[in-house]
Amino acid sequence: MTVLHGLVPPLCTPLREDGGIDVNSLRSLIQYQIEEGVDGVFVLGSSGEAAYLNESSRRAAFQVAAEVCPPNLGLLVGCLATTAQRVCDEIDRLEVLGAPGVDGIVITAPFYGTPSEHEIEQHFAAVKEKIEDRALYAYQIPRSVGYQIPPSVLASLCKRGIIAGYKDSSGNVAEFRSIVSTLENPSNHALFTGSDVLADVYLEVGASGLIPGLANIRPRLFRMLLDGHASGSYDFARIQRSISSLVDVVRLGEHFGLSRHAAQVGGLKHVLHRDGVIASARTSSPLEQLPIEARHEIDAVLVKADQDV
Amino acid sequence: MTVLHGLVPPLCTPLREDGGIDVNSLRSLIQYQIEEGVDGVFVLGSSGEAAYLNESSRRAAFQVAAEVCPPNLGLLVGCLATTAQRVCDEIDRLEVLGAPGVDGIVITAPFYGTPSEHEIEQHFAAVKEKIEDRALYAYQIPRSVGYQIPPSVLASLCKRGIIAGYKDSSGNVAEFRSIVSTLENPSNHALFTGSDVLADVYLEVGASGLIPGLANIRPRLFRMLLDGHASGSYDFARIQRSISSLVDVVRLGEHFGLSRHAAQVGGLKHVLHRDGVIASARTSSPLEQLPIEARHEIDAVLVKADQDV
Amino acid sequence: MTVLHGLVPPLCTPLREDGGIDVNSLRSLIQYQIEEGVDGVFVLGSSGEAAYLNESSRRAAFQVAAEVCPPNLGLLVGCLATTAQRVCDEIDRLEVLGAPGVDGIVITAPFYGTPSEHEIEQHFAAVKEKIEDRALYAYQIPRSVGYQIPPSVLASLCKRGIIAGYKDSSGNVAEFRSIVSTLENPSNHALFTGSDVLADVYLEVGASGLIPGLANIRPRLFRMLLDGHASGSYDFARIQRSISSLVDVVRLGEHFGLSRHAAQVGGLKHVLHRDGVIASARTSSPLEQLPIEARHEIDAVLVKADQDV
Amino acid sequence: MTVLHGLVPPLCTPLREDGGIDVNSLRSLIQYQIEEGVDGVFVLGSSGEAAYLNESSRRAAFQVAAEVCPPNLGLLVGCLATTAQRVCDEIDRLEVLGAPGVDGIVITAPFYGTPSEHEIEQHFAAVKEKIEDRALYAYQIPRSVGYQIPPSVLASLCKRGIIAGYKDSSGNVAEFRSIVSTLENPSNHALFTGSDVLADVYLEVGASGLIPGLANIRPRLFRMLLDGHASGSYDFARIQRSISSLVDVVRLGEHFGLSRHAAQVGGLKHVLHRDGVIASARTSSPLEQLPIEARHEIDAVLVKADQDV
Repeated sequence: MTVLHGLVPPLCTPLREDGGIDVNSLRSLIQYQIEEGVDGVFVLGSSGEAAYLNESSRRAAFQVAAEVCPPNLGLLVGCLATTAQRVCDEIDRLEVLGAPGVDGIVITAPFYGTPSEHEIEQHFAAVKEKIEDRALYAYQIPRSVGYQIPPSVLASLCKRGIIAGYKDSSGNVAEFRSIVSTLENPSNHALFTGSDVLADVYLEVGASGLIPGLANIRPRLFRMLLDGHASGSYDFARIQRSISSLVDVVRLGEHFGLSRHAAQVGGLKHVLHRDGVIASARTSSPLEQLPIEARHEIDAVLVKADQDV
Repeated sequence: MTVLHGLVPPLCTPLREDGGIDVNSLRSLIQYQIEEGVDGVFVLGSSGEAAYLNESSRRAAFQVAAEVCPPNLGLLVGCLATTAQRVCDEIDRLEVLGAPGVDGIVITAPFYGTPSEHEIEQHFAAVKEKIEDRALYAYQIPRSVGYQIPPSVLASLCKRGIIAGYKDSSGNVAEFRSIVSTLENPSNHALFTGSDVLADVYLEVGASGLIPGLANIRPRLFRMLLDGHASGSYDFARIQRSISSLVDVVRLGEHFGLSRHAAQVGGLKHVLHRDGVIASARTSSPLEQLPIEARHEIDAVLVKADQDV
Repeated sequence: MTVLHGLVPPLCTPLREDGGIDVNSLRSLIQYQIEEGVDGVFVLGSSGEAAYLNESSRRAAFQVAAEVCPPNLGLLVGCLATTAQRVCDEIDRLEVLGAPGVDGIVITAPFYGTPSEHEIEQHFAAVKEKIEDRALYAYQIPRSVGYQIPPSVLASLCKRGIIAGYKDSSGNVAEFRSIVSTLENPSNHALFTGSDVLADVYLEVGASGLIPGLANIRPRLFRMLLDGHASGSYDFARIQRSISSLVDVVRLGEHFGLSRHAAQVGGLKHVLHRDGVIASARTSSPLEQLPIEARHEIDAVLVKADQDV
Repeated sequence: MTVLHGLVPPLCTPLREDGGIDVNSLRSLIQYQIEEGVDGVFVLGSSGEAAYLNESSRRAAFQVAAEVCPPNLGLLVGCLATTAQRVCDEIDRLEVLGAPGVDGIVITAPFYGTPSEHEIEQHFAAVKEKIEDRALYAYQIPRSVGYQIPPSVLASLCKRGIIAGYKDSSGNVAEFRSIVSTLENPSNHALFTGSDVLADVYLEVGASGLIPGLANIRPRLFRMLLDGHASGSYDFARIQRSISSLVDVVRLGEHFGLSRHAAQVGGLKHVLHRDGVIASARTSSPLEQLPIEARHEIDAVLVKADQDV
């Protein structure tokens, strides 16, 4: 089993104005990512609104991705559900195991309740048993599940071969680094960060890949960052600053009273729509849509950021 | 639309040793509850392991309940999912809308993320639109969803007729009371508590019903409590003390390292099994099973409590 | 050692416009409380702005109270500091041990850091060793110290005679009740609540006294509540409703952007000033003063509440 | 006003077996630090047990440091108290303003309560007014005060000249970086991290200095790290790994049930004692002392770490 590395944007899921999946826009988005040089795409993650979409939309999003992705492009799919048995149902519903070209299934720790460490391990083990030799990835996202998977559990799951790696969206660099340091051969594992503003730092402390939300709209910057890091860092710091200057795209909505998630996805979709990649900036109910004033402010951020590159 | 009041135990979901639903035991459990004088039953709540069961188990549990419940017994069903569209899928999967005798659908606030107040309201409104004239109940359970639904939102949802009432499992008596006090006609709403140890207190501050986990094993005590309260309270305090003396049944497992949920459901199922109501005390994977020493300690609690009544 | 019971308002500390203690207003406030029939007063608690006043102000406030309180009036004094040795310094600074008529010293669990259970017990034991046969009271206030003293620790401190009792400002009725139930002879201990809106509930579950902020402004209502409870409850529920209708006095400031504490103390002082009990509504720097619009809204609350009594 | 940069260990406060300050050991510790090439020392921070020591011990610790520090050695002093007026008292008690050679006063945001943003700013402004042209430093330590000072507030305090800089002990690298990026001329401000295991990362994202607990015992490693960073990084990563391999010194105690703080300070003092720098490893009551088994494990960590350098 080879593990995925490099740049794997967590794709937005384009919607039609009536709320259903916009299949053409999703194809266009994946095409755009391929042209910009990504190593893979991650569908049905948090940025993909997986917690909001109904079953038929999730299945459509995954099936389109599986169909469109060329063999050499990595494909990760999120199967979001509270605990192992529900995750297994989700895998069946999306028909993940029958699809070609899936490089990994991404699941969170159990949520809706606080499990013991033993239960966390069992949760991942039960899903791994179902998917057999497919790769399983853990998703460390305490702000969504309510607690941090203990580093010792993540390291143990890696060592036991239950997970191929994990995506860290906690922002806790010290913990990420301590996990890297306990793995005998870190490069055998896929160690991703979801951070936009610390992408460079995570690479320095041992991340093997990036799954950053802002890569939806400016994948090339992250491509440059990864290449810069690999090649010994010419312009490395400057590229990160360019990336960081985009962060208001996903935060401005909060100043207008939107929830964190509505602001994040709304900001990304607005830019993708503005840039002609997708046909509508609509987000799933009950997320609030970005108000027009927020869109104007995002436009200004983008104009300035694009000039500075 | 009449609203449900009184005693509505949140039923455990009996499992076979292989993890599937034990239909006969579920029938037996409902029969037991009816004989003990409950006003209704709540299936697929937290005590029913809704977050852990796969789709076919959840459907089986609901369908058996819908089949077995006589017309005069209230039936609430939990439709647990992260946000409105997924809740609607769950309603379809369980075939709730086609089933006879459903008195209410119980859903939590959005989870896996922190919504804005507006998004919380929209979440309930979207589900209400789907279920039309069926009654919708909110489930206030901050330890599972990560935040408290603001009292003003709950009151607003009641006043707008979107929810028929709610179940409070927060333990925040002050907030419950403040919601009751803002409703023009509280008795038009179903105002339930999930508390075992404060059942009497909640009744005193305006609860119209009880959905307490311990009612699985000793429904008659709660029946007596409700009747005592209605009739002006002879023995009211003593009955609550009898109930409270049972609380270690659902907590002892934690001393043995189990998660809160594993301890709670495991304790209830152990007693139901011991009392011959259900055929196995098994809980869903990945919950840990109660160790034998914990079972012995629970037995001792029960012997003592039953003598004291 | 007799323990204090009954109504013990946590006094505001009146300030002059220049921020120093207004000794005359403090005398007037204590006089007012005596006339309204309180059983004691608590100086330098949270409502007394103990966390904000400098040493000379704290000493002045305590010395005035010690001087003014007649022998038959209970006197509790808060000695607020992070851990035991600093608490002991505070006791010396205020000259508590040399003052006549002190019925108890109130301290929180250690704060600025999260101690082990053993350290919490040692903290109280060390202070008790210093004050010898004076009574020590624990202050359960998780929102200020960052964690809850475990019920088993509070019960143990009571049983070992280290604390004479405690004041619960957590709002966690279930935990309070469980502590009461583990004490062999609860009436030997002073079991206070700091709650305004659940004062009746706490009395029902075993509280022996009240230290409610709103008693600063309407002590007579709490007097009536206690007497109603003792005498078997004629009008008990109605009195609590009158109390609860005042709660916006201490909350309205938050709608204007004030911190919780600024809103609470500011509201109480505004009413005391308006009622002519104290000369100024000023609160300590860096607390924000209540804006004029908030004061008008509080006046309206009060007019309505006073009519309804 | 020049601001302090570089390596400023947060000194432990050596105690005698009877709990009082061990003046000779403190002198010895400062002498040791000077020989190892530090740029300054920070007394009465968290590692200095400021929250635990009584007034006379705190004064002694500060006065010894002020006396011993040569003019070219930076001296920071923590003045730990809940809010501005109490901080000002602490400054007077320690006689900070009369002492020669003080390069900065370090204070936290208000604690024991959650202030508004405005109150946080006022808190720092009020202390700044008292100390006039002395430098004030903010201490960002959410695990002790219960909340994070908003980055916008820290940036504003820097820009207004109220604080000369701050020490970040939050571990939130993204927020630190965002503050650095909003300052017009970051090198005019003292931007310290308290992190041991991310010292290199903080330097890379713009920290101008280090206040790491482990510098008590191995200052030379941090000296090498800073010099390595300044000179363009030969061996930079390797040095950080050597530092990180020491982290169990301050954590092992937690495996034996000690609180985080008892484990941290106990570990540092054990090593200082073992290395002959201070005469006793005693920590302040009510902190628990490190058990002998923990000391043995720490010795093993140290032997291994010292070999690896």
